[in-house]
Amino acid sequence: LQIKDFLNKQKISDVADLVYEYEDYAEKIIGGMSVHRAASVFKILDLGVQKTIIKELPPSKTAELLNELPADDRTDFLEELPKSAIRDLIKLLDPEEIKITLSLLGYPEDSVGRLMTPDYVYIYEYFTVEQVLATIRKHGKNSETVDVIYVINEKGELIDDIKIRDIILATPDQRVNDILDGRIVALKATDDQEHASQVFKMNNRVALPVVDDNNVLLGIVTIDDMLWVANEEYSEDIQKIGGTEALDEPYLDIPIIKLVKKRAGWLIILFLGEMLTATAMQHFQDEISKALVLSLFIPLIMSSGGNSGSQASTLIIQAMALGEIHIADWWRVMRREIISGLLLGVVLGSIGYLRIIIWQNLHVFDYGIHWHLVAVTIFFSLIGIVLWGSLMGSMLPIVLKRCKLDPATSSAPFVATLVDVTGIVIYFSVAFMVLKGVLL
Amino acid sequence: LQIKDFLNKQKISDVADLVYEYEDYAEKIIGGMSVHRAASVFKILDLGVQKTIIKELPPSKTAELLNELPADDRTDFLEELPKSAIRDLIKLLDPEEIKITLSLLGYPEDSVGRLMTPDYVYIYEYFTVEQVLATIRKHGKNSETVDVIYVINEKGELIDDIKIRDIILATPDQRVNDILDGRIVALKATDDQEHASQVFKMNNRVALPVVDDNNVLLGIVTIDDMLWVANEEYSEDIQKIGGTEALDEPYLDIPIIKLVKKRAGWLIILFLGEMLTATAMQHFQDEISKALVLSLFIPLIMSSGGNSGSQASTLIIQAMALGEIHIADWWRVMRREIISGLLLGVVLGSIGYLRIIIWQNLHVFDYGIHWHLVAVTIFFSLIGIVLWGSLMGSMLPIVLKRCKLDPATSSAPFVATLVDVTGIVIYFSVAFMVLKGVLL
Ligand SMILES: [Mg+2]
Ligand SMILES: [Mg+2]
Ligand SMILES: [Mg+2]
Ligand SMILES: [Mg+2]
Ligand SMILES: [Mg+2]
Ligand SMILES: [Mg+2]
Ligand SMILES: [Mg+2]
Ligand SMILES: [Mg+2]
Ligand SMILES: [Mg+2]
Ligand SMILES: [Mg+2]
Ligand SMILES: [Mg+2]
Ligand SMILES: [Mg+2]
Ligand SMILES: [Mg+2]
Repeated sequence: LQIKDFLNKQKISDVADLVYEYEDYAEKIIGGMSVHRAASVFKILDLGVQKTIIKELPPSKTAELLNELPADDRTDFLEELPKSAIRDLIKLLDPEEIKITLSLLGYPEDSVGRLMTPDYVYIYEYFTVEQVLATIRKHGKNSETVDVIYVINEKGELIDDIKIRDIILATPDQRVNDILDGRIVALKATDDQEHASQVFKMNNRVALPVVDDNNVLLGIVTIDDMLWVANEEYSEDIQKIGGTEALDEPYLDIPIIKLVKKRAGWLIILFLGEMLTATAMQHFQDEISKALVLSLFIPLIMSSGGNSGSQASTLIIQAMALGEIHIADWWRVMRREIISGLLLGVVLGSIGYLRIIIWQNLHVFDYGIHWHLVAVTIFFSLIGIVLWGSLMGSMLPIVLKRCKLDPATSSAPFVATLVDVTGIVIYFSVAFMVLKGVLL
Repeated sequence: LQIKDFLNKQKISDVADLVYEYEDYAEKIIGGMSVHRAASVFKILDLGVQKTIIKELPPSKTAELLNELPADDRTDFLEELPKSAIRDLIKLLDPEEIKITLSLLGYPEDSVGRLMTPDYVYIYEYFTVEQVLATIRKHGKNSETVDVIYVINEKGELIDDIKIRDIILATPDQRVNDILDGRIVALKATDDQEHASQVFKMNNRVALPVVDDNNVLLGIVTIDDMLWVANEEYSEDIQKIGGTEALDEPYLDIPIIKLVKKRAGWLIILFLGEMLTATAMQHFQDEISKALVLSLFIPLIMSSGGNSGSQASTLIIQAMALGEIHIADWWRVMRREIISGLLLGVVLGSIGYLRIIIWQNLHVFDYGIHWHLVAVTIFFSLIGIVLWGSLMGSMLPIVLKRCKLDPATSSAPFVATLVDVTGIVIYFSVAFMVLKGVLL
């Protein structure tokens, strides 16, 4: 009982830390708290620990906990479980909660519907401020927030949202009608969660109402869930950019075999693509044997294309994710990349050119009698390849988005592979033009 | 006047869209609104447009707008301007606002102090609920939020925070003392904004109090600002991972010459690093000329190391940014990467091995009489390089963090460059062991 008292006095983040420290006692800690606080802690834990707790808790406690969990957080937990487990757990819920949970799980993954909670305070426009306060006192306890309340009509259609501030600042006998500002921001249940995050950013609200196609109020989404969405999208995009499938689990928790599987897929695809470099090299083997000196610069040339490509692709992926660039901007992007690519190519080309000139003249290395032509080859190849890398890197995410795929999938390694293969062709084509009749 | 009415009725996100659509009239639109709403729109606009508006607006309007802007958003705008412009604009402010602005600008960049607003409602613990409501009615209009209010003592020290819900649910004659729960989550003004974002995520609050070292309440930070922080950190990390300096401006708005400069720095460093591949190749030129067939696989081998390295580094950067991995976990990470690296290496190695065997036997290409030894070289080189890439990629972000640098700086291209150079050495060493006395 002393422990229970102690636990109930701590902040939920501290209890969460405690759970991680003593993972073996996780279900004891959660089970030892008042069910309301247990739910608050449970919802911020990692999926792995959540699963353990549900497995270890006695069924009656599990039922209590799941019923207490806010509907949106319950959906978030359930959606990660296998179908059979979902079915078993849903049976533990109260009839009313079952209905809610099933309807939320009916919305597509990563949609606003999944983040929604049906626990909010609604009022009618003919209410007085006094009636509103009474309603909040009556229903506020079970609603996720009272910072914003919602005005609906008899048909359940959303008319407006009011901040609690406006209610408190009003006199008790004022009518809701008079304090409505007519400005209402709402989400659709089928909207993507990334869209929701943008809407929150651009509108000064801590909760947004969710409506169906007929403007009927279905629930609300709260801003705290947006921080989790932002983290999820951050992880997803960074992992995809790095050439891994999104892990959906913390790195240290994911079973190693699953980790390898998530990485192997792309790595194999990239490897198969990269095999084309061997094919290209085989094609140019006569040139290589005639001018062995050319092979010395292959890694340098190739990597420059890859690097400029990954710069361009990450810039565009990032800008598209934040809504700064849309498909229609493709030509503006391309123009910028042509200029940047040329400038960057000239910079790298000049350095490469100088390297050969200097090494040759300081007798560090002998690039053969035609060393000057080799330097010219490097100069023009680098311009071509950096330009090509920038163009590929910037256009690929836009093309993917156009095909309704996730732009982040055109991860840096993917662009690098594309550019590696074409880079070899560019390099030997330039070499052929410059060195024809001399070395080749 | 009709326009003013029209503008005041729109949602702020719609007005913002309007501003972007008619950028030439930006200052007309902002100037045509009530100053309170103008401030709400101004604060969500991009820096570029904000600057134009301030430049075009008549000084009296600018002064009005800047004074109306919430202190945190004002800081956010000012901090991006040149020092001289800041000085000129601060002069336009009211004496009280000048003091606030200067003190906020005194906190380090990206610290909680910069996000703070001094506009909040505070009460004393001996207040009755009725007095609290009166205080909110008096000061609530100018405070950024009334969703949470703060209890302090005579010394200004923070005692607790109370949600507005608890005030409304209480009876008017209850004392604040009785509804305190003693659970208080606070930030320090010098905390990093990324830390703040984690604290918000883990604690159910829409605003957090900010205190100094003596627990004196300085201001509050609101959760909506965390969405901007999340976006900023997202962009920063993704751009660094892609090998660009953080742009700090939208891609389409940044002057192209600045864009090139931000990209050229890393590109040149990577290029100089990558030049070591040419040095390594020069060192192995005898081997290459004796066994030309080896050169065909250089791009394939090198890119595999780069790809596995960028996978590993992005996974670790992401996990560290979300606080899933700390420096102390380095050994757990290394163990996982050794296993993953070996497994992935064997997978790629086998594919590479098969490629040579199959091509040779189908007579697609002739890898020479020792083709089988070449295949064995490829197999073992790939294991070595993929393992090496995974280790480098995973350890580098941890080492950077250890040196108090941003782990995201060990961008994928950086790891790839490191692995490219060492990859050549690994490849030729393996080749030497396998082919000694035969081809080499
Ligand atoms: Mg989810
Ligand atoms: Mg409204
Ligand atoms: Mg919620
Ligand atoms: Mg939640
Ligand atoms: Mg998504
Ligand atoms: Mg995404
Ligand atoms: Mg590469
Ligand atoms: Mg800032
Ligand atoms: Mg409290
Ligand atoms: Mg704020
Ligand atoms: Mg703000
Ligand atoms: Mg930062
Ligand atoms: Mg960061």
